Order: sequence, then structure tokens, then C-alpha cells
Amino acid sequence: MPRIAYVNGRYVPHAKAMVHVEDRGYLFADGIYEVCLVKDGRILDLDLHMDRLWRSLGELRIAEPMSRQALGLVMAEIVRRNHVDFGLLYLQITRGVAHRDHAFPQGVRPSLVMLAWATAPERGSTLAKKGVKVITLPDIRWQRRDIKSVSLLPNVLAKQQAREAGAFEAWMVDEKGFVTEGTSTNAWIVTRDGTIVTRNLSHAILSGVTRLTALEIARKERLEFVERPFTVAEALRAKEAFQTSTTLLVVPVVEIDGKKIGTGKPGPVARKLRAGYGSEYGA
Amino acid sequence: MPRIAYVNGRYVPHAKAMVHVEDRGYLFADGIYEVCLVKDGRILDLDLHMDRLWRSLGELRIAEPMSRQALGLVMAEIVRRNHVDFGLLYLQITRGVAHRDHAFPQGVRPSLVMLAWATAPERGSTLAKKGVKVITLPDIRWQRRDIKSVSLLPNVLAKQQAREAGAFEAWMVDEKGFVTEGTSTNAWIVTRDGTIVTRNLSHAILSGVTRLTALEIARKERLEFVERPFTVAEALRAKEAFQTSTTLLVVPVVEIDGKKIGTGKPGPVARKLRAGYGSEYGA
Repeated sequence: MPRIAYVNGRYVPHAKAMVHVEDRGYLFADGIYEVCLVKDGRILDLDLHMDRLWRSLGELRIAEPMSRQALGLVMAEIVRRNHVDFGLLYLQITRGVAHRDHAFPQGVRPSLVMLAWATAPERGSTLAKKGVKVITLPDIRWQRRDIKSVSLLPNVLAKQQAREAGAFEAWMVDEKGFVTEGTSTNAWIVTRDGTIVTRNLSHAILSGVTRLTALEIARKERLEFVERPFTVAEALRAKEAFQTSTTLLVVPVVEIDGKKIGTGKPGPVARKLRAGYGSEYGA
Repeated sequence: MPRIAYVNGRYVPHAKAMVHVEDRGYLFADGIYEVCLVKDGRILDLDLHMDRLWRSLGELRIAEPMSRQALGLVMAEIVRRNHVDFGLLYLQITRGVAHRDHAFPQGVRPSLVMLAWATAPERGSTLAKKGVKVITLPDIRWQRRDIKSVSLLPNVLAKQQAREAGAFEAWMVDEKGFVTEGTSTNAWIVTRDGTIVTRNLSHAILSGVTRLTALEIARKERLEFVERPFTVAEALRAKEAFQTSTTLLVVPVVEIDGKKIGTGKPGPVARKLRAGYGSEYGA
């Protein structure tokens, strides 16, 4: 659990990490966030997270709360103050506090909140060894999923539905039958001919940081891959399926909608990509 | 401006109305809200707001923070403590505070926040006399707009786009070309043959309280009406257009996407419906 939080310029005990009820993050989900993985006390892929954060700010025209460099210093400091060796950093920026009115308020400062906490380093590897089950659901979210906003209610509902179905994640499916992504993961398959497939970037999905780094590993390992949409039917016929996220990196999917994928066990491509993050992540 | 807020069991000065950063309303937009009109110190259409609130809670499976009766007492008290004669009451309920994880947390209490503030009674009438301009935009929101959730980022962006286009509101249009609703209003037209049209209830729109009461007025006044979707083209050919909301009741729309509707002035049907709320609202 986090012990010290950063809230609008101050480091405060977690229990006192409070924001105003008229913060637009609370009233309107008018804000964005990032989750970063911390390893050996350092934030992984910081530049990629920063790039995406700045893009989200730009898309929503939320002012920068501070320079990129200053933000990096606060991020490092909140990790340090929480003594996180391995764990997560959570960062949220909202448009700020203003009397309730939908349109952008004038002259407000954005709000900035950060949390950091330790997690069990072996959790991802344990999941990776067993693989996880996934269900598919219609994607009922808004059409700008490329923006990493806190407007996450549909993701919450889909994740809950997955849990109640005994699954780890829900993969969401667009109106044409193509998988978009998981509620907090990107979705991947390996086709019969061994090609890795994950959906191409567009407004339909978030550009996951681990999606980018996994593609980079595939490139280095000279694995065949293509970025394009795939259907649920194609996923069910696949040799392998897996998902990527910052929190758990590459995790094999061994079952979709109650049907075994491939051998029903984690496959070699997912293992190879996961190992690309370091031998300690090997499944 | 609100002076006293109600936050999770306590009446506090507005400046101290704070919620925890791990309130799921802040992290996930995992909450719902209501806005009620206050007149002569009393909350109008309280039962209709309560019905909708309870429906929203049920749809999201958020626990009731207190009984309906107790909630009514707190609502009356926050109005009294803010000395609101004419104005607005804002009420928000979220799933509660829990360490960040998408799925529903166990054993948490929902958060309950209320604000009340005075507004200028003449504002609605002034707008009603002149009428307002509207633009149309693609409806990119999620597909459960019947739930009055705080997942309002797309509404915020559309309202801002309207303001920057010199319009008062944006009417959103579904993929088939039918108007869904405004960012914080329901949309209506009066056809050439004098029939009032507003979209039928479904997951596509919110069941506005003023939409319901305006239909009730139409019934009493024996005005012809039908609940069905209409296109932007039909709206442009209409005799009249108007919108309804709790905050401003019935407001005529005199221009859509830069084109005059009917005479380009507020029409008799909107005037008649507005007057149904009491002679003081007459335009």
C-alpha cells in the first residue's frame, strides 16, 4: 500500500491525500493518468510514458502542471519516499478545480497526484507460468480510447464481468467483430503460420507502452509480426494468445470464452517476448 | 457559489470539501450524480430525481449510501445551510475509496457528496427569450448513456467545441444520422405538421427529468407529440427546435449549425411548454 502521496505540490501521508470535490477529475472524469512499473527503484520506460502523457494532455488541452524534467524528479521522489524497490507508480493529471460547468474553465491550474507502492515481483511470473483466462464482451466505450483518460467506467464494468465469469480479463470486441483490447491490457495472438498479430494503433485502442516494447523485442528476436485487427474467431483458432500491460508485462492467455487456445498452455512466443524484459521475468 | 458542502456524513466549508485521491470517482469515473433545481428553497421533482438516482445505482451495482428518506433530509439540509432560495443542488455518489484495481472492491462504503448554490432565476428566461444556437457533432460517447454517470469527458469536449463555435450547446448525432441528445440537455423539434418530437428512451440517451415533465405538460395541453429519433436534416426543416434540462427547463433553439430554424425566433410550442412550469418561467 502507498504510504506517502504527492498531491498538488505536497508530499502527504496517504490517508491525507485529498482533492477537492470540484476537481474536474471527480465531477467529469476530465483527466488523464499513467501507470509505470518500478524495478530496482527505477521507473521503466519513463520516456515512453512521458511521451504518451504529453500526448494525452495535448489531445484534451489540459495544461502541463510542470515541465517534463520537473515531473520526472517528482516521480523519482515519490518512488523513493515510498521505498519502492519493485512496484508501481500511479500519476494523474486533471484539468483542475473549478465551479461545475462542462466547458473548460479559465485560469485554473491542473491538478497533479502521484502514488507509488510495492508489489510482489513474482506475481507476473506466476501468472505467466499458468496463463490466464479471458472472456470477450462488446466494446461499448467511447471512440477516443487512444487518450489515456480516467473516464474508465466501462473498463471497470467489463473487468468486473470478467472476474465474475472466473476470468482474469475481458477482451472487448468492436461492432465489426474485431478485438480492440483488454480493459487494462493490449491483446495479441500468434497465427497458425507463426505470425504475431496485435491491433494497429488508431482511436480504437490505447498505445500501450508494453505493446511498444514487446514489438521492439519481436523485432530484435526477428519474430514475424503484423499490426492489424483480428476477430474472436481468429483468436480461437490461434496457436497462442497473450496480453501485455505495464503492470504484468507479457501474460499468456490460455482460454478465451471457455475455449482452449492452442495447447491450452502458455506458448513459446509469449515466453520469448516475456524473457526479453530480462531473465528474471522468464516464465 | 456553494458555501457549505456535505461530504461523507459531515457538513464542511466549501474550501474543505475534500475526497480521497483513491475515491473511485476520481480514479475511474465510477460514480453517478444528479442535479436538481431548487425553487423557493424546495427541490423540484424530487421523486423523479430519486427514481433516476436509484436506477443508476442499480445499473452500476453501487450500494445505497443511505435510505431514500434520509437522503432527502440531507438534500433539504444542504439547501437550507446554503440559503438557496432559487438555485441548484448537486449530488454525487461513487463506489467508494479503495486501493486502485478496476474490479469492484469488497467491503467499501459508497462516497456521498452534495453541493448547493444559488443561481440567477432570470437566466433561463433571458435565454428563452432570445433562444440559443446549437452545433451538431458525432456522438462518440459510450453506449450506456441512460446511466447518469460522471464519465462525462466526451460531454465536456463537445460542450467546449460548442462554446468555441459560438454556440450554447452541441447536439450529438449517432452513426445513423439521428440526434441523440445535447451534452447536458435533451433535444426536441416541432415538425411542419406541428408534432413535437423527442427521442424515445433507450441506452442511447439519458431520461431527462425535464424531458419527462415537458412531455407531461404536452399531454395536459393536448399537444401532439411522438417519442422517436429524428435526423439533423429533419431538425433543420422543423418549425421549431428546443432543448430541455433541469437547470434551464425549456430553452428554444433558433439556429443549428449556422442555419435558422423556423422563423429564427423562439416559437410558440417551446413558449407554451416553458410556461407550463409556472408563469414566472414564461418567455
